[in-house]
Amino acid sequence: MTKLALVISRWDPQPWIDRFQHLAPELEVCSWPDNGIAAEEVGYALAWQPPEGVLAGFPNLKAIFSLGAGVDHILSEPKLPDVPLVRVVDPDLTMRMSEYICLHVLMHHRQQRLLDADQAKTDWTERPQWSAASMRVGIMGLGELGRDAAEKLFHLGFQVNGWSNSAKQIDGVTAYAGQDELDAFLGVSDILVCLLPHTPDTHGILNRDLFRKLSRDGPLGAPVLINAGRGKLQVEADILASLDAGELGAATLDVFETEPLPVQSRLWRHPRVTVTPHNAADSDPEALCRYILGQIRRHEAGKDLQNTVNRRTGY
Amino acid sequence: MTKLALVISRWDPQPWIDRFQHLAPELEVCSWPDNGIAAEEVGYALAWQPPEGVLAGFPNLKAIFSLGAGVDHILSEPKLPDVPLVRVVDPDLTMRMSEYICLHVLMHHRQQRLLDADQAKTDWTERPQWSAASMRVGIMGLGELGRDAAEKLFHLGFQVNGWSNSAKQIDGVTAYAGQDELDAFLGVSDILVCLLPHTPDTHGILNRDLFRKLSRDGPLGAPVLINAGRGKLQVEADILASLDAGELGAATLDVFETEPLPVQSRLWRHPRVTVTPHNAADSDPEALCRYILGQIRRHEAGKDLQNTVNRRTGY
Repeated sequence: MTKLALVISRWDPQPWIDRFQHLAPELEVCSWPDNGIAAEEVGYALAWQPPEGVLAGFPNLKAIFSLGAGVDHILSEPKLPDVPLVRVVDPDLTMRMSEYICLHVLMHHRQQRLLDADQAKTDWTERPQWSAASMRVGIMGLGELGRDAAEKLFHLGFQVNGWSNSAKQIDGVTAYAGQDELDAFLGVSDILVCLLPHTPDTHGILNRDLFRKLSRDGPLGAPVLINAGRGKLQVEADILASLDAGELGAATLDVFETEPLPVQSRLWRHPRVTVTPHNAADSDPEALCRYILGQIRRHEAGKDLQNTVNRRTGY
Repeated sequence: MTKLALVISRWDPQPWIDRFQHLAPELEVCSWPDNGIAAEEVGYALAWQPPEGVLAGFPNLKAIFSLGAGVDHILSEPKLPDVPLVRVVDPDLTMRMSEYICLHVLMHHRQQRLLDADQAKTDWTERPQWSAASMRVGIMGLGELGRDAAEKLFHLGFQVNGWSNSAKQIDGVTAYAGQDELDAFLGVSDILVCLLPHTPDTHGILNRDLFRKLSRDGPLGAPVLINAGRGKLQVEADILASLDAGELGAATLDVFETEPLPVQSRLWRHPRVTVTPHNAADSDPEALCRYILGQIRRHEAGKDLQNTVNRRTGY
């Protein structure tokens, strides 16, 4: 078996190396750069925000694995070699994302922030309540994550609509597709959940023009935004402007244009914004290593890699 | 058709009367006492905390309906006439209760209060995260409400155990039954959800002795209590003592020994307590009226009433 190089910015690679060695002692794994291994020996790379040119420096590279569900952090590399790029599809990660989405949809639906404020004032006020069946949740992005979240929200009783680039079929979900149907989808979204990939087409899609097209006749009055996709999908100045203008009632954001979110950002302090530190869904390292090992073994056995990225669409 | 009397404390009966008249113009409905109707004419009563002796004053009463899922507020009436007492079983109410349970289980599971505190400090800290599969939720009470909540929590990925007086079977749920299995059930509960009815057997069951038997080796360290059943199930002094002693990590309470919760109660201000104003699941008045009308029509047609209460067990 050829060697696996970890090309990781920001995180410590050693725990990943330890896990691979525990699961597959026969696989040689290194953190790049590594003095003991020549670039020619590297057959596979596991990457997170790879520094420019590193991946292109492996002449015998067979495939690149992304250390995360999105691949924008790799596709933005201008010198990306022409080998298959594999996304993580991990049921555990998918479940965690759905936990986050269900939690934050329910928090808005049940007005938990209003009840928190009542508690702080020792105020026993029975707030009006409506059933999930009268709340329309719109999910942008119907890949693995969006599909699972849609299905779980439907199971909780919500009306669920979905929008994606190409048409999808999901039980219980009304699916909209493409630019032509975007406005109709937005018009029936009381709570908008964004799980889109970041591509040139989706860059800055969550802007004031879009917020103004959201439903204004849901039980909450003003629509709500939940973004757990990528920070570069959103225009933060527009989110703040729409919140202040009443075009958005509230927002829950797990991702930001710049991460960590700068201390100066008004999002931290806005009373109707919930900020979480890009932790909607952590990868379970053990499950991720098993997945990547499974893919390497498939490839070495001459089978197709799974969940490869289409570079034209970016997902 | 004989007449329906509303015997309601605390709420305004007029909207209920209007709804019944809209749905069944042929049914005569009054709020008791009513000058225009004699006690002999009342065949059915819809009750919430009925004043002592009122129900016994209807000599031709055929059935009593409870305006709520629990019936303790009627069974506590010492002069309760010996006619069938019917619980509300309303799919809409059940769904709303499951929304509340899923929301508050997820809030604890995902440490939302810790993230809220981080946001208040402008602190971007990635907190450790675990999957729902590593969290054990224990549900006390496996009637209509407990069963639906259990099933939805299982669907979200949690390990779910349940405890009830008599043995129940629910897909995906490990069921414990009776006094003999209570301690074993508590020992595997990281998050305890209480949906028991209030009966002489369950009065004050949520006490310090019980809290000390809860699991202490879950991901959160100290166990969590969620009570959405009845306030008289809990001993509030014991909840505070166990929170202060670290025997409970946090509590979410929708019901209280005295409601509204008195302003002096320390529960309002405890940093690890979430107080909600007995609004876990409001009845949808339209659905409730339809249900009661359906039961009256069954009875008038000579069929059995559904969901009648066993006075010995109290539910």
